Amino acid sequence: MEKAKQIDDAQGYVEKIEAALREYLPAAAGREEKLMRAMEYSLLAGGKRVRPVLTLAFCRLCGGDVEAALPFACAVEMIHTYSLIHDDLPCMDDDDMRRGRPSNHVAFDEATALLAGDALLTLAFERMLCAQSIALVGAERAARAAGILATQAGWSGMVAGQVIDLMSEGRQVTLEQLKEMDEKKTGALIWAAVQIGCEIAGAPTQYREAAGLYARNVGLAFQIVDDILDQTADAAQLGKPIGSDAANDKATYVSLLGLERCQELAQQLTAGAVKALDVFDGDTSFLRSLAQSLAQRKK
Amino acid sequence: MEKAKQIDDAQGYVEKIEAALREYLPAAAGREEKLMRAMEYSLLAGGKRVRPVLTLAFCRLCGGDVEAALPFACAVEMIHTYSLIHDDLPCMDDDDMRRGRPSNHVAFDEATALLAGDALLTLAFERMLCAQSIALVGAERAARAAGILATQAGWSGMVAGQVIDLMSEGRQVTLEQLKEMDEKKTGALIWAAVQIGCEIAGAPTQYREAAGLYARNVGLAFQIVDDILDQTADAAQLGKPIGSDAANDKATYVSLLGLERCQELAQQLTAGAVKALDVFDGDTSFLRSLAQSLAQRKK
Repeated sequence: MEKAKQIDDAQGYVEKIEAALREYLPAAAGREEKLMRAMEYSLLAGGKRVRPVLTLAFCRLCGGDVEAALPFACAVEMIHTYSLIHDDLPCMDDDDMRRGRPSNHVAFDEATALLAGDALLTLAFERMLCAQSIALVGAERAARAAGILATQAGWSGMVAGQVIDLMSEGRQVTLEQLKEMDEKKTGALIWAAVQIGCEIAGAPTQYREAAGLYARNVGLAFQIVDDILDQTADAAQLGKPIGSDAANDKATYVSLLGLERCQELAQQLTAGAVKALDVFDGDTSFLRSLAQSLAQRKK
Repeated sequence: MEKAKQIDDAQGYVEKIEAALREYLPAAAGREEKLMRAMEYSLLAGGKRVRPVLTLAFCRLCGGDVEAALPFACAVEMIHTYSLIHDDLPCMDDDDMRRGRPSNHVAFDEATALLAGDALLTLAFERMLCAQSIALVGAERAARAAGILATQAGWSGMVAGQVIDLMSEGRQVTLEQLKEMDEKKTGALIWAAVQIGCEIAGAPTQYREAAGLYARNVGLAFQIVDDILDQTADAAQLGKPIGSDAANDKATYVSLLGLERCQELAQQLTAGAVKALDVFDGDTSFLRSLAQSLAQRKK
């Protein structure tokens, strides 16, 4: 494999990730061809690729080889993608659209979407633990990175968050409960993404802790900004006062705290993420602006 | 951990496996308690535990430590269990009963069953790659064992088999196609189970090849016997001639080959499995009688 060309910019990272995801997908062939097409449909549907970018950027910041981290970064994205496919299913959120296109079970069918999700979840581990990946980073780091992802994606992390989310529908939810749900449903995978970057680089403990702090802050800010954008879009569309939430009975940060407090909080969390970067010796400007751009995004 | 007490009998293996599965399940707690109960409901529902028994027996036959193989054996069973939960869902086979009890989505609900399956699939990797398991067998073997399981359970193995199975419904299927489907849907995981036992023991290549041959033979014999049992039970129940299959439009070995040829074939395959054991130096009597008892089972 060609020696890593280290590019610390979002565009460069995303290009690497897109190419690698394409490479790691199985070719559509055989009687199970539809499965592969369904996997590809969702995995190559674009998106910001925030999680794998975080893996690569933290790996690089900790002195690791970005090329060696690519299979692991892509594994995080595969887990994220499978969770979206399963989340959209009729028995879950029953969403017909995802990223401006029909969701997987609409484009294919429910059984295929279910199995494409299962296959992507499994492919994440297959890719991290194949002979090539083990050769790139060594068995110790490969096993530990895959272990981090399994722990954060499973019953105590992302899947727990999905269960809590389902159980919260139509119920009174406190701010603490909303935070717990988000920390599991989306925060756990963002935390895994940064920790895997550190693991592949063999980072020291203080780097891992700072990366974890950055991830926690960015993850929560991301959710709060999501809520702000949803609410302001709804309000603009429906001509109703911001903060009222008649169309949707789910509690949000905006419904619980109000718009102004949410905007303050998102700024504080982003500042906290940026502050966490202080301990690193390397150039943190990319991760600093990533945190800021996520907080200032418009959609 | 107490030093392995090496018991080479089915009862001893199953007891170890049941105890370990119970230990590895998360305690039901928190707002996501229902998820844990759904995971436990299916994982502790009994069954013959053929796959993890194969892992332990091959590990032992290759001179490995059965206790060290336990997390990996249980991971295979977790994957098997998740596949049953997802297979029973309304969008798949839509089965209301499993092992004489309501299937997972009937006992809980579809969303919980979907997520319990996802969580068990993820838990398999979490358990194989946790610090304890890595300490028991070393990172090399842990990573390779988990890699074997991911490859066999995913898009080219078990999940592909499920897709092919779904696509075969109501269609003319050749014997070759039926075999391909079974080799993927059930054979791949049985093959993984024995290979993982060999991997944990650090077995030499000729042992792994013989174990693979044993698994391929046992796996196919198992399916053929399944079909024989289903057909003879159906015939007894419905008073119709054996081999006619009006109630079910799925092709089976019996519908394609006839009952007598199937019985011969199951015997040949079992003999092939037993023959494959010849290369081993150790005591193969347990694995010999396991192959025979699977072929001679009554339900």
